[in-house]
Amino acid sequence: MDFLPLTKILSLTSISFAFALALTPLLSNFLYKNGLGKNIRNDGSTPIFTKMHAAKAGTPTMGGVLIWGTVTALITVFWFLDRILKIDFFHNLNFLTRKETLLPLGAFLGASLVGLLDDWLDVRKKGFKGQGLRFRSKIWLYAGVAVIGAWWFYFKLGFSSVNFPFLGSHDLGFWFIPFFMLAVVATSFAVDLTDGLDGLAGGTLLIAFFAYGLIAYTQGKTDLASLIGVVCGSLLAFLWFNVYPARFFMGDTGAMGMGVLLAIVAFLTDSVFLLGLVGFVFLIEAVSTILQILSKKYFKRKIFLSSPLHHHFEALGWPETKVTMRFWILAAVSAILGVIVYFIG
Amino acid sequence: MDFLPLTKILSLTSISFAFALALTPLLSNFLYKNGLGKNIRNDGSTPIFTKMHAAKAGTPTMGGVLIWGTVTALITVFWFLDRILKIDFFHNLNFLTRKETLLPLGAFLGASLVGLLDDWLDVRKKGFKGQGLRFRSKIWLYAGVAVIGAWWFYFKLGFSSVNFPFLGSHDLGFWFIPFFMLAVVATSFAVDLTDGLDGLAGGTLLIAFFAYGLIAYTQGKTDLASLIGVVCGSLLAFLWFNVYPARFFMGDTGAMGMGVLLAIVAFLTDSVFLLGLVGFVFLIEAVSTILQILSKKYFKRKIFLSSPLHHHFEALGWPETKVTMRFWILAAVSAILGVIVYFIG
Repeated sequence: MDFLPLTKILSLTSISFAFALALTPLLSNFLYKNGLGKNIRNDGSTPIFTKMHAAKAGTPTMGGVLIWGTVTALITVFWFLDRILKIDFFHNLNFLTRKETLLPLGAFLGASLVGLLDDWLDVRKKGFKGQGLRFRSKIWLYAGVAVIGAWWFYFKLGFSSVNFPFLGSHDLGFWFIPFFMLAVVATSFAVDLTDGLDGLAGGTLLIAFFAYGLIAYTQGKTDLASLIGVVCGSLLAFLWFNVYPARFFMGDTGAMGMGVLLAIVAFLTDSVFLLGLVGFVFLIEAVSTILQILSKKYFKRKIFLSSPLHHHFEALGWPETKVTMRFWILAAVSAILGVIVYFIG
Repeated sequence: MDFLPLTKILSLTSISFAFALALTPLLSNFLYKNGLGKNIRNDGSTPIFTKMHAAKAGTPTMGGVLIWGTVTALITVFWFLDRILKIDFFHNLNFLTRKETLLPLGAFLGASLVGLLDDWLDVRKKGFKGQGLRFRSKIWLYAGVAVIGAWWFYFKLGFSSVNFPFLGSHDLGFWFIPFFMLAVVATSFAVDLTDGLDGLAGGTLLIAFFAYGLIAYTQGKTDLASLIGVVCGSLLAFLWFNVYPARFFMGDTGAMGMGVLLAIVAFLTDSVFLLGLVGFVFLIEAVSTILQILSKKYFKRKIFLSSPLHHHFEALGWPETKVTMRFWILAAVSAILGVIVYFIG
């Protein structure tokens, strides 16, 4: 039986969902037994946030392990089955290729492991002020992951140009490397900021990956689209337990890892500027946070009741799930616009 | 500028979202001013349901008008602009064609108007027991819509065979007509049963239509996929106000109309048996209700704490939004499986 590309992508997506869903009882038990609960920030600097989120203290974090664990398990198993069994059926399901998926997989795992370290230090109340890694250290660590990715793109894959919608492709030369690093680090931190309400980062990531999966599919990048499909499948299983009231959170190991992966997928499909639309929710979450910090620092007043933006709406009295679901809808509409711009731009 | 099919479909989807979102303040004001609030069933036969849903009394229904109103307005406007302006840009956006969209549009509007009548009688406490149309009358009215559709399919479009996944196409001859009617009426009632929690029917319909939109697109039925896209766009706008706590419900004019449309789209894409997977949530909602009624009647005991199924989970103590979001996830996964079966079946 020969698989159409779409069949391969969607089959792997479904297998991933089933696999991840079967893993959750184990993960959930492990996290609860080991008391890997999230500490809710309470240093006096964020009174509104702290009050709204007190009930979430103790819910375990690091649920992102489910996603990169599933991705790693499936990509390894199907690669291995293809190698040893040499039959068509398993050859059709192998999606590990040096050209399309090795780099994003590596960067995804690298960033996820840094995130895991940070989550671990946070729940053990170790590190800087007992809250895990220092912000500065985090920037350096993720920049380290990004520079390896940039190096691979520039020297191994020969990427040095970027496509500007409606303007065409422009060669950045060596400037491609810092631009790549900036985009990767900014995206991962923006996704991490979005991870503040049950189901919010998971749902918006699902939608953004789905849009890039569609773009990769239309470019004939079936293996990349399959990797994205596997992320989406495990995200659906993750969301089953992460929707309000969340049984666990994804943590930095989920948000930072998937943020890095999303940016790299955007580069691999040569549509990095679409990130502003496909990941519009991440953009406004990051911009609202930056504006709030600058305004507090220079004008001594707040622009939003609380930041990132989702806490502003929560502080306005919207139920948490209303903020989440409306941000999902916003993400869906911006992703559609992103895909349109991709096709006409 | 020449549009790719996908650009046409997604552009119309976005226009539909923006148009419907702009209309909601008008609709919302109209519904609230005219006191078109839903009556929550309280005849003593459903104590658990009545208690859980007392807070929803007074929320206006008939929000489904937003969806078929948007569809009708956009399909007419773009058809008209194409007819009078004769320029490429508008020709690209016209999606009214006799071959693909006239029939589903007609059936959608017919069923929606019957639903509107029923909603109207219900809120005005007229009709049978002051709850709108009698169940028997509803069956006959929707069967009337279905028989016109069946007639069109059989005599005008020359349809008489049905594709069975993995088994191939079989000619049903004249039996196509009762089979068609049964599928259309069953789907619409199943969708209507699903319409019992904020955002539930809207989200599951969005996912099911999306899957059929993808199927229609891969079949080259761009106008049908555009019609589906416009339904999805307006559903996204509807959901913005329909997620918990809902500002309005879709009512029969939404659920029955879209149920009929969904079944007709399944016939037009020759994949009616996929409805059991793509619309899996509607199936289990209907089956749980039928089982509950039969068990109460013949064994004098209930199988579920409350039916349809979503009320069972609500009665188990799940927050309403948890039931809704988990059913969305279930709908997404079953829709993916449905699309896989379409491609390999």
